[in-house]
Amino acid sequence: MNKVYVVGIGPGGAQQITPQARAAMDQAAVLCGYTVYIDLVRSLYPGKEVFTTPMTREWERCRRCLELAQSGRTVAMLCSGDAGVYGMAGPLLQLGPEFPEVEVEVVPGVTAALSGGAVLGAPLMHDFCVISLSDLLTPWETIENRLLCAARGDFSICLYNPSSKKRAGYLRRACDILLREKAGTTVCGWVRNIGREGLERRVLTLAELREETVDMFTTVFIGSSATREIGGWMVTPRGYEAKA
Amino acid sequence: MNKVYVVGIGPGGAQQITPQARAAMDQAAVLCGYTVYIDLVRSLYPGKEVFTTPMTREWERCRRCLELAQSGRTVAMLCSGDAGVYGMAGPLLQLGPEFPEVEVEVVPGVTAALSGGAVLGAPLMHDFCVISLSDLLTPWETIENRLLCAARGDFSICLYNPSSKKRAGYLRRACDILLREKAGTTVCGWVRNIGREGLERRVLTLAELREETVDMFTTVFIGSSATREIGGWMVTPRGYEAKA
Repeated sequence: MNKVYVVGIGPGGAQQITPQARAAMDQAAVLCGYTVYIDLVRSLYPGKEVFTTPMTREWERCRRCLELAQSGRTVAMLCSGDAGVYGMAGPLLQLGPEFPEVEVEVVPGVTAALSGGAVLGAPLMHDFCVISLSDLLTPWETIENRLLCAARGDFSICLYNPSSKKRAGYLRRACDILLREKAGTTVCGWVRNIGREGLERRVLTLAELREETVDMFTTVFIGSSATREIGGWMVTPRGYEAKA
Repeated sequence: MNKVYVVGIGPGGAQQITPQARAAMDQAAVLCGYTVYIDLVRSLYPGKEVFTTPMTREWERCRRCLELAQSGRTVAMLCSGDAGVYGMAGPLLQLGPEFPEVEVEVVPGVTAALSGGAVLGAPLMHDFCVISLSDLLTPWETIENRLLCAARGDFSICLYNPSSKKRAGYLRRACDILLREKAGTTVCGWVRNIGREGLERRVLTLAELREETVDMFTTVFIGSSATREIGGWMVTPRGYEAKA
C-alpha cells in the first residue's frame, strides 16, 4: 500500500497527540515536516528517518512525500495543530491526482483555536471565525473584508499568524478594522507557546490589544459582544440564555 | 484539591481521545455528562461512578459537578468534540465564582469541524466560520445575520446542529440565505456519525445540499468560492497561491 498520512499533532506536547495520530506515525517509515514540528516528536521516534524542508517550500515538500509513498514507503507528514487548518492536507490532496496509486489519509488534531481557547477559558463557546493575518498567500483586502464581516456578524474571532518579523503592526491594523464595528471594551485574550515551555496568557480589552506586541507563536482571541471576563477567564456564553 | 475537569473527548472513538483527556478521566472519581457521551467511554472505565442528566438540564448538571468537587471529589465533565465549542466549559466557568474553592481545568479535544473536515478532505484549510443552526438559545435573526456575514466574507462555513426533530427544514432555510450571496455550484459536504459506526459522507453542491435531509448527528460544510472537489475530496486552497 502506498500511503501518506497527513497528521495533526496538536499544539506540541505528547499529551495532546491523539492515539490515531500516534498510530499513523508508528506506521510511517518516514516522518516529514518543518524542523520545529519534527523536533516536537523526535524523542518519541528516536530511530525513525526524517525529512525536513524549509518553511516556504511547501509544494516541494508535499510532492516529495507523494513520491516517497509512490516508491513504496509509508510517509507521515506532520502539521502543528490540525492537519486541515492552514496545514498540509490541502496541498497534498491538490497534488494527489498526479499520484493515483498513493492514498492520502487526513488525521485531525487539536488546532490552536481549541488548545489556546482552553488556556483562556471558553472564548469560542458560541459561533466563531478563524482568520489568518498572513498576507503571504492572501491579499490584505480579503483579510480586511473577512475581519469586517466577522465583526458585523458579532462572531468570536480567533486570529492565527497575528505577527511576524515582516508583518509587525498587522495586529494593530486588524484591531483598527475591528474597532470600526466593535467596542474598545470588547473582551480579548492571547496565548503564547500553547502546550510548550514558556506558556503565557493575557485577558485584556480590544483597545489594549491594539497596543500589544505579539509574535508568531501567539494566538489571539477577540470576543463577541457577549464575551465576559469571569474570574480571570475569557468566557463567551453559549447563547442568550439566562444563567439558571 | 477540589477540581472539575471539563474534557473534550473528540468525536467518539478511543483513538481520538488525547492522553491529556485520558489523564483527566483517570484522575476523576466521578464521570459526568450526557448518557450518549458517557456510553462512549464507559468501556474504558468500567468501575467508575457516573452521573448523567438529560440533555436540557445543563446548568443543573454543571452546578451538581461543582458541588461534588466542593465536597472533595474530583469530577470529569465529558463533552463530545471540544469542551469549549458549544460545550460545558462556558457554563462551568460562569458558575465558578459561586464555588471559589473549586478549580476548573478545560481540556481541549477534536471538535467536529476538524474530525468531519478530515473525513471530507480539507474543507477548512483557509479562514472559516463555525455556526450552530440551533435556535434553542439564540434568536433565528442572529443566526441568519451570521450566515449572511459568513457568506459575504467568503469564509468556508461549518454548520453544527443542522437539524433536529423540532427543527426540520432549518438546513434548507440556511441554504436559502447563503444562496443570496453564494453560487448554487459552491462545493459543500456533510459527514454523519463521525468517528462512530455508520460513518457516511457526501460531497455535493450548495443547490443539492438545499434538497438534502440530514439529522442531528450530521456536520455540514459549505465551501468558499475557492473550494473545489478533487478526486472525491472537498478541498479549500490555503490562499490564492498558484499550484507549484
